[in-house]
Amino acid sequence: MEEFKVLEIKKSVFSCNEKHAEELRGQLKEKKIFLLNLMSSPGSGKTTTLTRTIETLKEKLRIGVMEADIDSDVDAKTISNLGVKTIQLHTGGMCHLDANMTVQGLKGLGTEELDLAILENVGNLVCPAEFDTGAVKNVMILSVPEGHDKPLKYPLMFSVCDVVLINKVDVLPYFDFDLEICKKNILMRNPKAKIIPISAKTGEGLQQWTDWLLNEVRAWKK
Amino acid sequence: MEEFKVLEIKKSVFSCNEKHAEELRGQLKEKKIFLLNLMSSPGSGKTTTLTRTIETLKEKLRIGVMEADIDSDVDAKTISNLGVKTIQLHTGGMCHLDANMTVQGLKGLGTEELDLAILENVGNLVCPAEFDTGAVKNVMILSVPEGHDKPLKYPLMFSVCDVVLINKVDVLPYFDFDLEICKKNILMRNPKAKIIPISAKTGEGLQQWTDWLLNEVRAWKK
Repeated sequence: MEEFKVLEIKKSVFSCNEKHAEELRGQLKEKKIFLLNLMSSPGSGKTTTLTRTIETLKEKLRIGVMEADIDSDVDAKTISNLGVKTIQLHTGGMCHLDANMTVQGLKGLGTEELDLAILENVGNLVCPAEFDTGAVKNVMILSVPEGHDKPLKYPLMFSVCDVVLINKVDVLPYFDFDLEICKKNILMRNPKAKIIPISAKTGEGLQQWTDWLLNEVRAWKK
Repeated sequence: MEEFKVLEIKKSVFSCNEKHAEELRGQLKEKKIFLLNLMSSPGSGKTTTLTRTIETLKEKLRIGVMEADIDSDVDAKTISNLGVKTIQLHTGGMCHLDANMTVQGLKGLGTEELDLAILENVGNLVCPAEFDTGAVKNVMILSVPEGHDKPLKYPLMFSVCDVVLINKVDVLPYFDFDLEICKKNILMRNPKAKIIPISAKTGEGLQQWTDWLLNEVRAWKK
């Protein structure tokens, strides 16, 4: 099954993104929909992590996914094959989504009867961190091959995220990546960050991640 | 030895970037300085590849390096330890460099008696592709862990690059990465792209890369 729409997102004409993000969060609270903003560098494993997450939670939550990409529909195809509501957002070259663009995405997706809407943001460690999408929580993935120094180089991304998933821990033996130094670097940027090492490939650590997400969604809907 | 300056780059006030880029290229041609713009996603191995490149070429060419990052000086420390002229450029949150910012960087670096100036651009597959820096050639690194689908998702980056280095081929056995599909995807975006699979860690393929660069620099100086 590959059923999803492709939406060409329009650039926002609004300057006051923070206000729009707060408004969107208010509407989501009212409708009891949890919006998760998932960010990372290209190729860190966002779509694979999302696939595992949906497989675990799709019997417990009604999930919808917005796949944002400059171009191509490969991720939306993968996700819609899992049987969840999916839309591909094309940003037309833009490097991030803001709150207004997210609203366009949610309208395109259709949020009726959803518990959890997930925005897979454009693969980019810089620009998406600068724009509040209106999400309830921000989560990022840093993968082992990228190196443990990334929190030093991309401070804002690490400081705006509630959870940092350290993905691809199955290949730790093949890379010069120090998990303890990485955790220290992340906490230096964001002392409140929840850090969960995972392997979307082998399943390691995923239970802790999906438990956290399920609890957050249930708390939001109360 | 760790001798390098840190320069806080100012945002360009110029709107006509293409014109400024062409002007810069003209000045570089006159001064017989080759400017290389090196781009990639965070963690693909730009600094390690640069280290190996400098080790091979530093007896043959006078090299200077501009390390652009949002924050931190880790890369400039690594490069300046090789004994080449190095400057750290802090972009102040900006996600790319344009021609005017590159001019600021070159002035800070000092180009007297240089054959080759290398700009290590901000780790980002989106925005740096949109701005001509004035470089003679654009080179990007795609690393195996990022996946062979990246040319589908980040079309502009692949289409503006003269060379695509496919790095970390030493870990090919541990990833679902198809080198032939990757090459096909790159050539679909850019039929003229020169594709060189390398491992900056083991040295595989580096000779072909440094030979190409040395030839280009020599041709430019004629």
